[in-house]
Amino acid sequence: MIKSIEAADRRYDLKNGAGSDAVHTNPQYAYAVAKLTDDDGTTGAGLAFTLGEGNDLVCKAAAFYAGRLKGQDVETLMHGFGNTFRALSNEQQFRWLGPHKGVVHLGLAAVTNACFDLWAKKRGVPLWKLLISLSPEELVNTLDLSYLEDVLTREEAIALLQKEAPGAAAREAILQSGYPGYDTSVGWFNYDDAQVRENCKKALAEGFVAMKLKVGSADPLRDIRRANIVRDTVGEQVKVMLDANQQWTLPQAISICNELKHMHPYWVEEPTHPDDVLAHVTLAKAIAPVKLALGEHVPNRVVFKNYLQTGCAGFIQADAVRVGGVSEFITISLLCRKFGVPVVPHVGDMGQLHQHLVLFNHIAMGHDALFLEHIPHLKEHFLHPVRIENGVYVTPQEPGSSCDLK
Amino acid sequence: MIKSIEAADRRYDLKNGAGSDAVHTNPQYAYAVAKLTDDDGTTGAGLAFTLGEGNDLVCKAAAFYAGRLKGQDVETLMHGFGNTFRALSNEQQFRWLGPHKGVVHLGLAAVTNACFDLWAKKRGVPLWKLLISLSPEELVNTLDLSYLEDVLTREEAIALLQKEAPGAAAREAILQSGYPGYDTSVGWFNYDDAQVRENCKKALAEGFVAMKLKVGSADPLRDIRRANIVRDTVGEQVKVMLDANQQWTLPQAISICNELKHMHPYWVEEPTHPDDVLAHVTLAKAIAPVKLALGEHVPNRVVFKNYLQTGCAGFIQADAVRVGGVSEFITISLLCRKFGVPVVPHVGDMGQLHQHLVLFNHIAMGHDALFLEHIPHLKEHFLHPVRIENGVYVTPQEPGSSCDLK
Repeated sequence: MIKSIEAADRRYDLKNGAGSDAVHTNPQYAYAVAKLTDDDGTTGAGLAFTLGEGNDLVCKAAAFYAGRLKGQDVETLMHGFGNTFRALSNEQQFRWLGPHKGVVHLGLAAVTNACFDLWAKKRGVPLWKLLISLSPEELVNTLDLSYLEDVLTREEAIALLQKEAPGAAAREAILQSGYPGYDTSVGWFNYDDAQVRENCKKALAEGFVAMKLKVGSADPLRDIRRANIVRDTVGEQVKVMLDANQQWTLPQAISICNELKHMHPYWVEEPTHPDDVLAHVTLAKAIAPVKLALGEHVPNRVVFKNYLQTGCAGFIQADAVRVGGVSEFITISLLCRKFGVPVVPHVGDMGQLHQHLVLFNHIAMGHDALFLEHIPHLKEHFLHPVRIENGVYVTPQEPGSSCDLK
Repeated sequence: MIKSIEAADRRYDLKNGAGSDAVHTNPQYAYAVAKLTDDDGTTGAGLAFTLGEGNDLVCKAAAFYAGRLKGQDVETLMHGFGNTFRALSNEQQFRWLGPHKGVVHLGLAAVTNACFDLWAKKRGVPLWKLLISLSPEELVNTLDLSYLEDVLTREEAIALLQKEAPGAAAREAILQSGYPGYDTSVGWFNYDDAQVRENCKKALAEGFVAMKLKVGSADPLRDIRRANIVRDTVGEQVKVMLDANQQWTLPQAISICNELKHMHPYWVEEPTHPDDVLAHVTLAKAIAPVKLALGEHVPNRVVFKNYLQTGCAGFIQADAVRVGGVSEFITISLLCRKFGVPVVPHVGDMGQLHQHLVLFNHIAMGHDALFLEHIPHLKEHFLHPVRIENGVYVTPQEPGSSCDLK
């Protein structure tokens, strides 16, 4: 039974331009941490990610939601978590502050993630193991599929999982081989050319075969120069992704993406405003065959549904510490599977939680094991930091979702 | 010069089911009030509206933004307010909590509205009078048109206003005749049939020729019964609007709206999730000629742009105490004018601020003077409450935006 709740405001400074992009010039990395303590002493920890300022607001929202869970038995709660999620996210006064977006939804993410962490810890297994052990019905019971009725009913969700079940055993091979990672930190926005070149070489030496560069400079020539540096340094076989962090207008995006085509980006990420579904549709057509990756700032399953319905997204980057936590992340992953689009999460959690979720997506849902973003800047602060060996995430074995901070 | 700032949390209980709808069963009406005090003692008051819980979070966000304005000269600030709005709404850490939505954007709304209130008070004129006195360039300087480049450039916005200028003098007749109102309070969700019937008669007696009923019952037969009661009571000449407050799934909305067609609703409002642009497109086609009204929960100009681009909205209900205040409301009104869609604001402010804005929209922008929602429940709390006479808003004459609370 959940005995006590707490929300902690944890903020970390970054060093020497790490984390910088075209829009976020000087971020902190911060977590609103929801903690749920069971009467047997087990503690579930769930994260929402912010860039510092306002992290306290997310903590307050998390505390509001967590308060509703006091006194609940964990197994009973998680058995019908979809209904709980739906009730919390539609709390009739708090809902006005969204709905299903912004501070309140980040708060809900932290609490949802704490619930899943606590559930796995109480069962004594890593979250990925718990999730793949659930039957399709049990899994879907943890989801809120409301407002998706036109594209994914409960019955369709169960059928989709049932259809993928026979292949799951073979896909569990990933647990041994490890899930591939990609390196986000070769080209933060504030890094100079020499450092980008050096980081690329370092990433290659560490076994990465995919990496990302921040673009979106006021001077497009800087973007092009830096992109060429990366391509020249790593060669044609390495996947290079470009990330504009919403900096471009639609006309700018069309123009610059066409100029960047020559270095064959694997994707262009967050080209413009994350609410602008139709701009992404126009852009995707204008710059084909270059594909768009989006979702880092998309708040909920409804907006993802629209993105998927239009077909403009080549890759969906839902983040379980931005959308309403593990539950809504899985819902979005089901939508993506239905629409045939890969899920490549943004990792506000530094991959701690997502390493579990992408294993589940691959094994139970049949998603391709493409690769998972890797950001090393907070490793020293986690109790069980992710382990990357030769560019590959080593499967976590500790009980829970690996989100405990020191 | 702005000398001090304050954010006040004001909440009001409602009586006997007032304010209730299918989703918000027991709301408070609450304001996060931003107050800016000039060194000459003039105080600007700006509102953001919530339903109670979490209003303190919006106050905190408002205080964050307002703090950035300390020491600024009001005329200088407002001369380039578009740039200030853009800078505040993209503050590089706080932005993560949106962007441009939820708690942070509500906080920005309160601060923006306080700036416009202070500006008008310092000039000693009502806000509508200040706004219509601005040249097209001066007006557009108060707006942030970023992320709209594909549909409305600065030059187009100025040209649009210039084109409407010659008709403005004739349209000022509205200042004498008053802006028509409609009565939202005849059919709150929790009212029983007898009360709805009585309220309809009362609204007719008070001179209203348009009124609204809450729908979205679990039992569609209740919606149909209540809609018939309203139509039977008021006759065919009165406009009756139906408001589902996002309660329906898309399949439900299609089915129920088709059943409600026979009583000729003037519009169906917020049929489903406010983020679901494509569902509204499907619905609008499925229930034509019934028109959709939407926007009460749409957070910013970018999402409105998408709604307008798809053509699914018959009426746009932007609310200046939900979007980023007066500035973004005007931006959205310009978009609507370009796309030929009427603006009929949702009035979280109880019409206090919007009575100024719809006069401006009509006079300077050439929008039809359709009607403005009227909700009487907070009248006793405002210093200068709106005056409705024979169903018509009497033009306010006090300096500022009429948003001072007692």
